Amino acid sequence: MAEAERRRAVVDLGSNSFRLVVFAAAPGSWWKLTDEIFESVRIGAGVGESGELQPEPMERALHTIELYVHFCRASGLASEQVRAVATSAIRDAANRDEFLARAREAGLEVEVLSREEEARYAYLAAVNSTTLADGAVLDLGGGSLQLVEVRDRHALEVGSWPLGTVRMTERFLPGERASKKHLKALRAHVREELASASWLPGSGPRLAGIGGTVRNLAAAAMRAAGLPRVETQGFRLTRDALAELRAELADRPLDKRGDVPGIKPERGDIILAGAVAVETVLEVGDFDSVEVTEAGLREGIFFADLLAPAQPPLFEDVREASVRNLANQYEVEPRHTRHVAALSLGMWDALAAGAVHAGDPAERELLWAAAMLHDIGVSVDYDDHHHHSRYLILNAGLPGFDPRELALIAQMARYHRKGSPDLGELEPLMRKGDEALLRRCSAVLRLAEQLERSRDQSVRSTRMEIDGDLVRLDLLAEGDVSVARWAAERQRDLFEQAFGRGLELAAA
Amino acid sequence: MAEAERRRAVVDLGSNSFRLVVFAAAPGSWWKLTDEIFESVRIGAGVGESGELQPEPMERALHTIELYVHFCRASGLASEQVRAVATSAIRDAANRDEFLARAREAGLEVEVLSREEEARYAYLAAVNSTTLADGAVLDLGGGSLQLVEVRDRHALEVGSWPLGTVRMTERFLPGERASKKHLKALRAHVREELASASWLPGSGPRLAGIGGTVRNLAAAAMRAAGLPRVETQGFRLTRDALAELRAELADRPLDKRGDVPGIKPERGDIILAGAVAVETVLEVGDFDSVEVTEAGLREGIFFADLLAPAQPPLFEDVREASVRNLANQYEVEPRHTRHVAALSLGMWDALAAGAVHAGDPAERELLWAAAMLHDIGVSVDYDDHHHHSRYLILNAGLPGFDPRELALIAQMARYHRKGSPDLGELEPLMRKGDEALLRRCSAVLRLAEQLERSRDQSVRSTRMEIDGDLVRLDLLAEGDVSVARWAAERQRDLFEQAFGRGLELAAA
Repeated sequence: MAEAERRRAVVDLGSNSFRLVVFAAAPGSWWKLTDEIFESVRIGAGVGESGELQPEPMERALHTIELYVHFCRASGLASEQVRAVATSAIRDAANRDEFLARAREAGLEVEVLSREEEARYAYLAAVNSTTLADGAVLDLGGGSLQLVEVRDRHALEVGSWPLGTVRMTERFLPGERASKKHLKALRAHVREELASASWLPGSGPRLAGIGGTVRNLAAAAMRAAGLPRVETQGFRLTRDALAELRAELADRPLDKRGDVPGIKPERGDIILAGAVAVETVLEVGDFDSVEVTEAGLREGIFFADLLAPAQPPLFEDVREASVRNLANQYEVEPRHTRHVAALSLGMWDALAAGAVHAGDPAERELLWAAAMLHDIGVSVDYDDHHHHSRYLILNAGLPGFDPRELALIAQMARYHRKGSPDLGELEPLMRKGDEALLRRCSAVLRLAEQLERSRDQSVRSTRMEIDGDLVRLDLLAEGDVSVARWAAERQRDLFEQAFGRGLELAAA
Repeated sequence: MAEAERRRAVVDLGSNSFRLVVFAAAPGSWWKLTDEIFESVRIGAGVGESGELQPEPMERALHTIELYVHFCRASGLASEQVRAVATSAIRDAANRDEFLARAREAGLEVEVLSREEEARYAYLAAVNSTTLADGAVLDLGGGSLQLVEVRDRHALEVGSWPLGTVRMTERFLPGERASKKHLKALRAHVREELASASWLPGSGPRLAGIGGTVRNLAAAAMRAAGLPRVETQGFRLTRDALAELRAELADRPLDKRGDVPGIKPERGDIILAGAVAVETVLEVGDFDSVEVTEAGLREGIFFADLLAPAQPPLFEDVREASVRNLANQYEVEPRHTRHVAALSLGMWDALAAGAVHAGDPAERELLWAAAMLHDIGVSVDYDDHHHHSRYLILNAGLPGFDPRELALIAQMARYHRKGSPDLGELEPLMRKGDEALLRRCSAVLRLAEQLERSRDQSVRSTRMEIDGDLVRLDLLAEGDVSVARWAAERQRDLFEQAFGRGLELAAA
């Protein structure tokens, strides 16, 4: 069973931005981010020449730290619940001790992460929010770039280079216009630095990417491709799409780069250097694409705490953990939910065994996820709760699933009660055959929901017999099943549309 | 403080449809509908000739009752938590005792409401979900029509007539086509029956309407007017719009009436009789419009229990109760929320006192509501929680506010953090001047949110001084306010756009 709820704050003093995040968790049941204060502080701005944090950025930083200290005090977060870490810009600054002393005066004890520690938290964030098992993790920040080799979900080689976006912009692309020469020099520099990662070429096939730069580039690529506005989590940013985006950014003057849809205005000035860095990593490592995750250093730190003492602190199965996490946050009739999932999978399996459909295990996993989440929308309002379930799934997100899969799960939940399943505005995310997949899973889920309409698990399980164009459904139950039969009978049309066969409920 | 959570089920065996609803409540804090099983049973079908419930409708009814009994047992609802009531069709049936005995055998003890009781619950539902103080309540069901005269929120005269939609359809509009003659006869019959309500003419000006017919007609009128898809709660269906809709329905054959957008297909066959009945009530009572409420008999019964021992069991202030109810369901940092509301109202009042705006109390109430609800979206996901707050407000609804007001509150919450306030797709619901209203309230709310960014109520209150084109804002605080000043400074543009004056933060 779940322990009592606990809270943890992580303060991430990055080279480009500062972020305070608060996580709440009932370990073993759910976790979520509950608060965030983001400030585009740019503490690394202007460090280049002197190696020192500059007065203005330092003032901005201390103001933000003061805000964070107030906030933690007001939120009742004790110092042992708050972990503040600093990365590249502060780590490497000649006057770092002065800064740390002033932060301490303001009430915040800051821990400077080593390069290896920074990379390790990036690895934990990525492997806990994607299905990456073999490949590499890229973490691109304002000050540094980390790469971690991953084999069988374990971290192997780790590297960190001072190739962050703020640094690279100041050094290579300081002007209003980015010349070909400057871009070439930047690219050559990144390539040269990464040569020390002898493991990188051939570490593929998969690369997971972390950090605001990667997220912004992915969002821009999704907008450029005309995809619906869903989170970037799990999106694959291909080399081609990235090259196109980089070319568009390079064509624009500095102050227009933040206008590219998907790029945040405050990131406009450093995004081009970031795009070149990511592109060069793909090239050197020979990756086709980078898979975006929205988790970051902060989540890595949080997961290390949440999942301790596991070593490494990883979810056993990221997708399953995501689904259970979201379901447990809403906790809508767990017994009913689990039973609908069991009935759905039982019928889906029987139809696969009877060769009524192909039995793709990936489809089965989506159906399970949808069944586990079909009722969470009740927390918004009972009326139209199928719509609300869809909204909550799309907006909370499910790390481990890509946007297409997330959208399919959301649509299945949407159609668990009413309506004729279609992909709607999410269609651009889909592949061929996905509408048929949606229809199959929705029909099975709705049938299961009807069999469980009285919510008493009176229909224990089902048996299906495939007889030519007819599927005969037998209800295994204790006691009277007339209500379940009567409720299920009304789903015949949907079933027939999905599977091209009639449905007959066997006599009691 | 709030008592422990309690649950109540109401089973409403209506003449057209049966409905089981489950309410959960923490009395003094919140209440909500958590479950609903709706069945279009039509128990009143075919009663006309014999005065007896017919065998087929009775079988459908008993099946549904069985489902409800299973459901209550599975949900752990004890019999003292379940109240089952029957209305017109069952009340008036010659074989009602047989039906009640069979329901009892199936496990449900059904109480037959008298006409007066039925009308009284309709009154409680309407006056607890609208701002109606003087006027009348119309409750139109499948079997009967109730009217209640309301003065100073108390029920005076009560009437009930066998003018329900199922009955009237069978008697006057049984065919595929509704002839002018039939419609005229129906209208004359309703008028004649209502003549016994001598209090009805002149009982206005306001009429609140209850029941699926009124809701469906309102939804259809909203669709016809091209309004965005928000709930019908609080919508005023005018006589003109109703006449147009009735004419369109009358032009269609029976089986096409359910295709009119907004009308539910299963209600298509009885909607025309319903439209004529409502129209005739408006005519006889000389009302301009009927204000829709989505509450019904079930809510009336629930409110009587929730608000006991108050006599009559009414919320003191319906709007305030709605806002607090929704806020308490999510309970996102109540102290922060209340303080943002207090700061917002303080600044809004000061600007009104300085004649910077007109100081309309209705605007003030919307601002208060938005402040109380601005953060509820955090429960969906911290990212974009301003969007989620908007979604939750629009979808949960706020009885007592009309669709325009609800939309304004939702937009204010949407703009409490980011973006440039506009009405967006909700614009068709608005009046002239509403965009300026939204900008004013959003600017004040965002300023308050920034002053309370550290969530520690360190800015106790504010003082405003209007000096020509400049508004000087003084922060009354204990201790250092540099963080609050720094956060608030960034809202100057928004303030200037909203009020046409500069904002200056007074020196600490």
